[in-house]
Amino acid sequence: MSRSYRIAQMAGDGIGPEVVAEARKVVEAVASAKGFGLSWVDYPFGAEHYLKTGEILPESVLDELQSCQALLLGAIGDPRVKAGILERGILLKLRFFFDMFVNLRPAKAFPRVPLPVPLPEGREMDLLVVRENTEDFYVGLGGDGGSPVDLGLERGLYTMEGEMRVRFSTPQRSAFQVGLATEGAVRRITADACERALGRGEKRLTLATKANAMPQLYGFWEEMARDETEKRGLTFETINVDALCYHLVRTPWKWNVVLCPNMFGDIVSDLLAALSGGLGVAAGANIGAGLGMFEPVHGSAPDIARQNRANPLAAILSAALMLDCLGEKEAARSVEAAVGAFLAGARPDELPEEMGGRGTTSAVGDAVASHL
Amino acid sequence: MSRSYRIAQMAGDGIGPEVVAEARKVVEAVASAKGFGLSWVDYPFGAEHYLKTGEILPESVLDELQSCQALLLGAIGDPRVKAGILERGILLKLRFFFDMFVNLRPAKAFPRVPLPVPLPEGREMDLLVVRENTEDFYVGLGGDGGSPVDLGLERGLYTMEGEMRVRFSTPQRSAFQVGLATEGAVRRITADACERALGRGEKRLTLATKANAMPQLYGFWEEMARDETEKRGLTFETINVDALCYHLVRTPWKWNVVLCPNMFGDIVSDLLAALSGGLGVAAGANIGAGLGMFEPVHGSAPDIARQNRANPLAAILSAALMLDCLGEKEAARSVEAAVGAFLAGARPDELPEEMGGRGTTSAVGDAVASHL
Ligand SMILES: CC(C)[C@H](C(=O)O)[C@@H](O)C(=O)O
Ligand SMILES: CC(C)[C@H](C(=O)O)[C@@H](O)C(=O)O
Repeated sequence: MSRSYRIAQMAGDGIGPEVVAEARKVVEAVASAKGFGLSWVDYPFGAEHYLKTGEILPESVLDELQSCQALLLGAIGDPRVKAGILERGILLKLRFFFDMFVNLRPAKAFPRVPLPVPLPEGREMDLLVVRENTEDFYVGLGGDGGSPVDLGLERGLYTMEGEMRVRFSTPQRSAFQVGLATEGAVRRITADACERALGRGEKRLTLATKANAMPQLYGFWEEMARDETEKRGLTFETINVDALCYHLVRTPWKWNVVLCPNMFGDIVSDLLAALSGGLGVAAGANIGAGLGMFEPVHGSAPDIARQNRANPLAAILSAALMLDCLGEKEAARSVEAAVGAFLAGARPDELPEEMGGRGTTSAVGDAVASHL
Repeated sequence: MSRSYRIAQMAGDGIGPEVVAEARKVVEAVASAKGFGLSWVDYPFGAEHYLKTGEILPESVLDELQSCQALLLGAIGDPRVKAGILERGILLKLRFFFDMFVNLRPAKAFPRVPLPVPLPEGREMDLLVVRENTEDFYVGLGGDGGSPVDLGLERGLYTMEGEMRVRFSTPQRSAFQVGLATEGAVRRITADACERALGRGEKRLTLATKANAMPQLYGFWEEMARDETEKRGLTFETINVDALCYHLVRTPWKWNVVLCPNMFGDIVSDLLAALSGGLGVAAGANIGAGLGMFEPVHGSAPDIARQNRANPLAAILSAALMLDCLGEKEAARSVEAAVGAFLAGARPDELPEEMGGRGTTSAVGDAVASHL
């Protein structure tokens, strides 16, 4: 076997195991068609594991994961676990620890997937959100309480070196949160977004900003991102995030590659998932220099878990992003095309339940695999 | 004359003067019908004035405005002025100076106004965004540069007393922005949102949050808002802002009163303006204990300025919010009803241009006034 990849799998909670099983099925099928090998390492982390053992994500696993080329994640979360614990302890931890600075969220209208805002005749929707994934308001810096707070950066969790101290006091209880941007981080994500724009034949990069209200942080973003974009010969444009959300609803076909600071990227990509046909087809990738993590945007949907009813297409499309990132571009394109072919050709009852059909999770996975 | 109100008018730039003229026409009509008086004080501030004189909003005017009960604003902004100068120098300045802590953004589907996401048969869209308007990431605290930064709060601009210092150093250029919440401010906006919910016969309050990623600031918000809401006997629910944007697109009829911290409120209310029929009917109010400011959500639209083509309905609906806030509830309801009656009864060619008709700005204003 010429090429082989070691993939970590964290299927997680609820529908996670079911959709990841189908993604894996499809990846196995394309691997044998294209002649590369795969070995899988399974990890049990998620809400179930946490509730049973109290363990979130041990440091030793972070070390082990260094030997894998990619991590395929299903869904993590359960209403019995307090919001934030697993998100920060697993998802954000992995993003920060492996410095996965690019969060990709394609928003493409697939055939047969009904759009809430119907596109006018002849228009297409095919956007790519490139979200900065390591800074902004996600660095966990803040405080809550009436008395002064001093915080140091946790080692290894941030791309920034150096230190920051916040001293805070008010006569009443209060809280604050800090967002950060460093020159290196803004430049590298902008460079990445420019490359991806050029790869799509696009010469324009749009930055979501809000410098009119947050001049320090986003003024800095605009300055660095403009410089980096224009240096590469692309046209740079900015739009305030509020206006962007407005226009994405009204004219989604007018947008192409949208670069977003972390928090705006979170909001804009969920909005786009809604506009491009829902969580059933929304795929996500977290990419850095080392391990990449690939995850559907949807959650664990405990209400339909273990019933073979979940739509596995978002997990399958996330696996396609994984293949692309591993360098298996042809395999990635085949998987995407297979999803497209399945959607275009399926009888109405073969579609996933979510799309009005009766196609089970495994039947949809089989059908996609059969198109490879 | 029994009751009389002193209203400041800042028509501003672009289409501002045209739409404010129609709003004023409608307010005059309802005032004489209901038997109250109005006196108007005109202010010239905006981009034109700034470009001519260099003056943004003098302190003396802030003093003068104390003698008015309300401020009706048209639109401010011009591509020739650097983004942020007038927004911070006029809009945000007025909001903070007069401690207008409630920003109201109703999102209601009016008859004949086409919705981008069509509502299913029998569903209605009638939401109210209650946005905190004085804190969060809008306090202007932050820094840009590689060297340490010390900032004090500007006197009079924030609801918080006390002091805060941020010391920041990295080996590379960097920037940061700080968001704040104080107990008093979260409690008062929550109390206000609860009152408005009860006034609409609604027993549930939804808070837009993102405590899973920004635990300090929004964990604090959740705690204070929950306490204040439950104390009043309403059901409190939270939803992450990304998921909220997703669900607003897919099921807008499921939401009622949505309480938002400042920045999320900015984004969510623009999204809702798009979903409820566009900026043509999106009205806004900024309310505190003193002067209130009422403004359409739309901008100055210089491309169609001075051609009698702009849609004045958002300005007219903002004036209705003003009347409501002045205590003229009946007059406010009459104006809203007149807008509804105009939209429901107009011949297609009488509708505003933006809605596919040929109704001029002044003709639409006349038509609404004729329904009073
Ligand atoms: C779970 C949460 C912390 C996460 C985020 O905010 O990034 C999620 O919403 C996402 O977009 O992947
Ligand atoms: C102009 C801008 C500063 C303002 C805001 O962000 O609040 C605007 O978007 C709004 O929503 O009124």
